[in-house]
Amino acid sequence: MTATWGNIERQARLWMVEAGDRIKTALTEEVVISEKSGPDDLVTEVDQDIEAFFYEKISEAYPTHHFFGEEGVAQVLSSLEGTVWIVDPIDGTTNFIHQKRGFAISVAVYQGGEGMIGLIYDVMNEEFFHALKGEGAYLNDRLLPKVEQTSLSKAVVGINAGWLVGEHAAALTEVVRTSRGSRSYGSAALEMAYVATNRLNAYMSLNLSPWDYAAGAVILAEVGCKATRLDGTPLSMLEKGSLLASSSNLHEEIRRHLT
Amino acid sequence: MTATWGNIERQARLWMVEAGDRIKTALTEEVVISEKSGPDDLVTEVDQDIEAFFYEKISEAYPTHHFFGEEGVAQVLSSLEGTVWIVDPIDGTTNFIHQKRGFAISVAVYQGGEGMIGLIYDVMNEEFFHALKGEGAYLNDRLLPKVEQTSLSKAVVGINAGWLVGEHAAALTEVVRTSRGSRSYGSAALEMAYVATNRLNAYMSLNLSPWDYAAGAVILAEVGCKATRLDGTPLSMLEKGSLLASSSNLHEEIRRHLT
Repeated sequence: MTATWGNIERQARLWMVEAGDRIKTALTEEVVISEKSGPDDLVTEVDQDIEAFFYEKISEAYPTHHFFGEEGVAQVLSSLEGTVWIVDPIDGTTNFIHQKRGFAISVAVYQGGEGMIGLIYDVMNEEFFHALKGEGAYLNDRLLPKVEQTSLSKAVVGINAGWLVGEHAAALTEVVRTSRGSRSYGSAALEMAYVATNRLNAYMSLNLSPWDYAAGAVILAEVGCKATRLDGTPLSMLEKGSLLASSSNLHEEIRRHLT
Repeated sequence: MTATWGNIERQARLWMVEAGDRIKTALTEEVVISEKSGPDDLVTEVDQDIEAFFYEKISEAYPTHHFFGEEGVAQVLSSLEGTVWIVDPIDGTTNFIHQKRGFAISVAVYQGGEGMIGLIYDVMNEEFFHALKGEGAYLNDRLLPKVEQTSLSKAVVGINAGWLVGEHAAALTEVVRTSRGSRSYGSAALEMAYVATNRLNAYMSLNLSPWDYAAGAVILAEVGCKATRLDGTPLSMLEKGSLLASSSNLHEEIRRHLT
């Protein structure tokens, strides 16, 4: 029997909930672990443990599928042929260390380069965003409506202050000035999920990896949003780069400010 | 019988929970109200309704106390003599409209200009921060430890990207560049509460009103933090201005970057 995308998605969600429970347990043990190796090692340990957990589960259940993750427990991919799982075990590492919250597990499944499944789980807040290509996006099993179209002057934009003090500050300054306001939550996966739920109207970053946005891109497509590089070119699921995610009209308006 | 500060604090918390329930109800009715008057009117209605609620409760229970609030339902104060309640019915108005979350009720009680009670309630997330001068600060009735001392290079700083595109950008740029990272949540009261819980190591803003920081300042004092203007001068509870809140060593380090 061949697994359907629906089967795979349900299976992946069960693994993510199990992984979330492991992370919660790890957080309660933090003090002991920190004494051994410090907070930076703790997060690496948890990151790697969770990524290995997914790699083992996926390899066993779907031996023909490929695996691409932040911690590099599997081979680095050079092609998106076949079925590829793209996994970020903990998106928002700094929040994980500093806040013990505000991070997410991000899991995507791509088929021949096309996003089929996008799953983002805010572990501590127990918000689970899921989407299956063509079947809508959901927050905790409630269907999300298409996002509202809005103009930049009425938009709340997700952008980190750090980008305003770097070499691309000038191009971004006008976007921030024109917007109604900006926010920064420190997890690209969650910030994309927030665009999908209208909590943010746009999200921008200058430098992300495929595992940061692979799941978010699938979810955003289901609510009528665009997710591209800042210059409007398609995202790569093999290479790092910038991200601009928003409703289609706002996407165009922001890009006009950037060029 | 004269009310003790503990009595007043317990009474205020009960009113805040009641006010929170009113806000939750108002949010479920949003669609109907929006059709009449639009989201900006909705928020004004709720803001004013909640402030009036506090004004009535306080006037009835403590007729000799003064009241100072964002919506101006009472007289504007020119002095902090006697007992003064400083109330922000909804801190984080943009979040309230756009996200239906990420806002707080902020209530403080000052005696002769000295902060005695500080209460911040994240209504949707059900996190209640409270402090009574000299008796510690609490999150959901659990005592908060003194905040950790940290250097700016290891600090997560709450600062909005909007301040990096304004006239004071140059002074703030160095702080953002030196920090480990920045966040922006859109509610000064919550961001001060996050400093008190080590979720942020510092919070900075260029322009806030007394009701934005009156309660946060009381809470922060109880966990060993400083809350002043950016130049280190004391906060005024009658006039607007900037805010720098953090642990004492980080406060000094950030101010060195600003001058």
